[in-house]
Amino acid sequence: MKKNKKRKVYLDNTPLDEALETFFNALSEVEADTLAGETILTENAHGRITKEPVFAKVSSPHYHASAMDGIAVDSKKTQGASLRNPKILTTPQDAELVDTGSPIPHDKNAVIMIEDVDWAGRNEVEIVESVAPWQHVRTIGEDLVATELIVPAGQKLRPVDIGAILAGGVTEVTVEPKPRVAVVPTGTELVEPGERLKPGDVVEFNSRVLSGLVSQWGGKPSKEDKLPDDYDLIVETIKSLLPQNDLIIVNAGSSAGAQDYTYQAIKDMGEVISHGVAIKPGKPVILGIIDKTPVIGIPGYPVSAVLAMELFVKPLLYKWQNKSVPKQEEITAKISRRVVSSFNAQEYLRVKVGKVGDKFVATPLGRGASMIMSLVKSDGMIVIPQMREGLEKGEEIDVKLHRSKENIESTIVGIGSHDISLDILSNELSKRYPPYTLSSAHVGSMGGLMALKRGEAHMAGVHLLDPETGEYNIPHIKKYLSDQDIILVNLAYREQGLLVAKDNPKNIYGLEDLKREDVKMVNRQKGAGTRILLDYKLEELGISSEQLTGYDREEVNHLSVAAAVNGGTADCGLGIRAAAEALDLDFIPVSKERYDIAIPRDFWDWEGIQHILKVIRSEEFKHSIDELSGYDLSASGEILHC
Amino acid sequence: MKKNKKRKVYLDNTPLDEALETFFNALSEVEADTLAGETILTENAHGRITKEPVFAKVSSPHYHASAMDGIAVDSKKTQGASLRNPKILTTPQDAELVDTGSPIPHDKNAVIMIEDVDWAGRNEVEIVESVAPWQHVRTIGEDLVATELIVPAGQKLRPVDIGAILAGGVTEVTVEPKPRVAVVPTGTELVEPGERLKPGDVVEFNSRVLSGLVSQWGGKPSKEDKLPDDYDLIVETIKSLLPQNDLIIVNAGSSAGAQDYTYQAIKDMGEVISHGVAIKPGKPVILGIIDKTPVIGIPGYPVSAVLAMELFVKPLLYKWQNKSVPKQEEITAKISRRVVSSFNAQEYLRVKVGKVGDKFVATPLGRGASMIMSLVKSDGMIVIPQMREGLEKGEEIDVKLHRSKENIESTIVGIGSHDISLDILSNELSKRYPPYTLSSAHVGSMGGLMALKRGEAHMAGVHLLDPETGEYNIPHIKKYLSDQDIILVNLAYREQGLLVAKDNPKNIYGLEDLKREDVKMVNRQKGAGTRILLDYKLEELGISSEQLTGYDREEVNHLSVAAAVNGGTADCGLGIRAAAEALDLDFIPVSKERYDIAIPRDFWDWEGIQHILKVIRSEEFKHSIDELSGYDLSASGEILHC
Repeated sequence: MKKNKKRKVYLDNTPLDEALETFFNALSEVEADTLAGETILTENAHGRITKEPVFAKVSSPHYHASAMDGIAVDSKKTQGASLRNPKILTTPQDAELVDTGSPIPHDKNAVIMIEDVDWAGRNEVEIVESVAPWQHVRTIGEDLVATELIVPAGQKLRPVDIGAILAGGVTEVTVEPKPRVAVVPTGTELVEPGERLKPGDVVEFNSRVLSGLVSQWGGKPSKEDKLPDDYDLIVETIKSLLPQNDLIIVNAGSSAGAQDYTYQAIKDMGEVISHGVAIKPGKPVILGIIDKTPVIGIPGYPVSAVLAMELFVKPLLYKWQNKSVPKQEEITAKISRRVVSSFNAQEYLRVKVGKVGDKFVATPLGRGASMIMSLVKSDGMIVIPQMREGLEKGEEIDVKLHRSKENIESTIVGIGSHDISLDILSNELSKRYPPYTLSSAHVGSMGGLMALKRGEAHMAGVHLLDPETGEYNIPHIKKYLSDQDIILVNLAYREQGLLVAKDNPKNIYGLEDLKREDVKMVNRQKGAGTRILLDYKLEELGISSEQLTGYDREEVNHLSVAAAVNGGTADCGLGIRAAAEALDLDFIPVSKERYDIAIPRDFWDWEGIQHILKVIRSEEFKHSIDELSGYDLSASGEILHC
Repeated sequence: MKKNKKRKVYLDNTPLDEALETFFNALSEVEADTLAGETILTENAHGRITKEPVFAKVSSPHYHASAMDGIAVDSKKTQGASLRNPKILTTPQDAELVDTGSPIPHDKNAVIMIEDVDWAGRNEVEIVESVAPWQHVRTIGEDLVATELIVPAGQKLRPVDIGAILAGGVTEVTVEPKPRVAVVPTGTELVEPGERLKPGDVVEFNSRVLSGLVSQWGGKPSKEDKLPDDYDLIVETIKSLLPQNDLIIVNAGSSAGAQDYTYQAIKDMGEVISHGVAIKPGKPVILGIIDKTPVIGIPGYPVSAVLAMELFVKPLLYKWQNKSVPKQEEITAKISRRVVSSFNAQEYLRVKVGKVGDKFVATPLGRGASMIMSLVKSDGMIVIPQMREGLEKGEEIDVKLHRSKENIESTIVGIGSHDISLDILSNELSKRYPPYTLSSAHVGSMGGLMALKRGEAHMAGVHLLDPETGEYNIPHIKKYLSDQDIILVNLAYREQGLLVAKDNPKNIYGLEDLKREDVKMVNRQKGAGTRILLDYKLEELGISSEQLTGYDREEVNHLSVAAAVNGGTADCGLGIRAAAEALDLDFIPVSKERYDIAIPRDFWDWEGIQHILKVIRSEEFKHSIDELSGYDLSASGEILHC
């Protein structure tokens, strides 16, 4: 049975709106689109939304209460009293001592403050002024009258509402339910966070993300134990979860691969409404219903998973709670790169957004469905409709923001080469000068200069060696940004060197060793600052690239070079010390290079840039960089005009 | 010892800024103004704020992983392949089957999708296109490079952040602490919510409000059991709470009455920094420190309590969490009434705010410190500085909003006479037409007409009988709003009658019985619609007010009349049926009266008013009113032009 049930090879490509409509109609048909209210203790209802209006059961105060410490009197008996013609009242018959909150005796209707009472004798007080009825008395229902509406339906209960409801004698309230959502992680490759990782292992973090989203949208998630890819186990688990959940999320096994059992499991137990939606990422989503309970198969890649949750789970949870999905703020931005998109799907593109000058600029982040950092770093989302081939560079597009506009307006946009000190800079900036933040996009030094040229960044991290002069950055800026006034600020000098295996088994001590026949190197892509540096150094030493084994093998970042060395497919490669440390490799220093920040003069006086400069010059920043190895801060903060 | 320790008679009147500064300085001196970070499991850190930056411990992926189901190859071995000149690769040596997520073998560097593979034989595949290195491979660190910054300090962790941190191999994070706050309710008069109430009992709801505020501001409250007013018990309780709390709140006993022990308790165990602040409400606040732990005495009246919490506890909790107190939105509004304020204190005035036409109008709510409903109903707060004698009617003032401006702009402002059907109207409106809400201020029918005249309300509930014609509302509108075009919409006819004790022991069957010598009545204040009705009916019957016992005794609302009857100080009084039902009295019908809503034509076409009309005409609204007794809806929704 397992064998012939396990597989469905092709996914549908249903347009999003159609998939949503069909699914919600199917839920409505089986009456799974509404949930009953939940009746809970009032004192536990902070933040919940009333499903029914709340009316007072008792009045508050529920008796005529003294508002002061004093004596309670009948106002009539004080009438006509004056300094010339005082009246004497005897206690307790005509003047009874009361504390704040004491009940007013039935034959009294006013209170005279204790400070104003003149004692005429042991049991007598002298009244020199008449008193209005109900003076200093909190009459019954002054605050809240029995049967009065305290809060209407649909109100999010604040602490003061809870107080008023309790004051009104109502100890239980009916609130919108928190939909109960089971999150079932599946996948034989999954391991728990913190376990030692073998190649092929995948950390099971998705269920934590999905549960977090469920909470955020008002639901009550229960994260289940992970399951291997096993049809029977998946069926059994779903079955056991049906009675006590309003929604079951299976993550993943939702595609059409050999190990994907989710579709078949839902189909065999209930009905699959839709499998495969024309969205990117997130296509292999499954919308199903078993026993009147929706069961949704969410794709495994984290970006696909989050997007599928946003599109299918969020509206369902809000509907169940009788709320409309909160609107995201939208702005219009200029897109900084050309984006080619598929005709066959509506694409959701994560972007960083910055305000440079008076324009918002959106820079696409990594589009891979596996890249959760693209969600962490993203400021907003662009939707490229199906049947469009993409976006042209400079095109104006709508961006749905994940952060507030105010937040984005206090973001310093940095585009250029990556260095770990930028992370520290970003961190110190947020700490010292909230709400200012630094957003860094890593496209290499030349990419950074081009972004400055197009007015899309406030600053660029650059380390461009000019092979002719041996000088850093200035020649390139003069050549490519000749019409702009650029100020360079040194961030640090950093060490580049050869990454070699732990304990240096091949005894590599310098670039000369690259010529050895038993040494296989790995290189960086053309145009990378590190490759320019290597070529420059090789020329100094009179070494031709043709003498080197592996010169043509290219990797795209420092870490990939380190990984090649670590995996044993190369013996060495040029990179920064941090990359060696990351993978526990040995490091043979070759050169120091200058890493600067290029800032157009137009932005120099802006508060954001001034804060950046203050951080660079701060002791805390220097101290944090000093804790890393491979950095020289002797010129840090130094300014060069180009 | 108890006797001579229990009392401090006079409070200070320290200006707010001075009290705050002295208190925070004192905390800083004993180093009680910062808290250590809290290290918790990453997966429990949703919504928490990072105190330290989080750097990746492992790369993600941590191995070169196939991004597709397919075959892994060495790209070099595909070079030169074309349709005319295909290359044959043998499996598994040169072409190894891989699933999505599988590790790429060390001697391979690209993946060809399974859909594109042509099998040339059992162990041979035919390649007709060369493949770029790293095609369909997720290289090590593609998403996240070990040592890379995942989130900076000061970031509120979202579900995707949690996922990325776990992907980076980090299972614990250091976050800003949740300050631990003990809330100790004191007062011999306190009873738990839901207990049967005797005169003098006060429902202990404050601790629930205070705990809710602590949670809302990021703290971790622990609500302690209530204590009677007992010096020794209070001392003992504070002592036992000191070790495990960052802040202790004692509520109340903070004033200078005979039963107020909080001041003395703090003084005897530590230091009182300030007792009595020049604010209204909230004056009797105590700021103290015991054993480096702040102990704050919060006044007992709910409005004073919430205000004192806002002013003293909120900034402390935010400081401890390294956050700035969120700014409240501010608008400028016209105040609708004159407000007299004290020279000696900075007053905090709760107001309802509405946008009528193009102006924001602020209407002061009840100013009593005991009135929690003034907080529930309030849209914002006005601060009247010390040394000002108040605000003139029509003055423009700043209002700090508790609700969003958008929310306020979709609020229908109703000012006038109160009726319970308005509560139902409000409730149905919120349910059917969010975000529209109805805000009702109850100042009587004439007050409502005057508010329309001044352009301060969209509608007014009115039931004004003209004694000369016996007609309702129209004569008054013609007289007082002659220059305005007003449309009247009938909401309901409602029953007025005599409220008498349960089972009618005095056998009262009509207004004629008021003449009996053994019958003592209670009346409403002059100008009340109900009094006008009574006078009209008495005249019809030829009864003179001088014949009636108790005609001069005035109460200010239906409920107070009911309470007087319930308490036995009167035998009957005129009022609406709902008041009789609220206090379980018998009801002798006297008359039906017309209750209309008056709407200026200027607002008639506005969406808010149109929604109100739709609700009035809806079956759901009629059905809800039908469930109450004393209402006749036969003319409901009927329109009369004046």
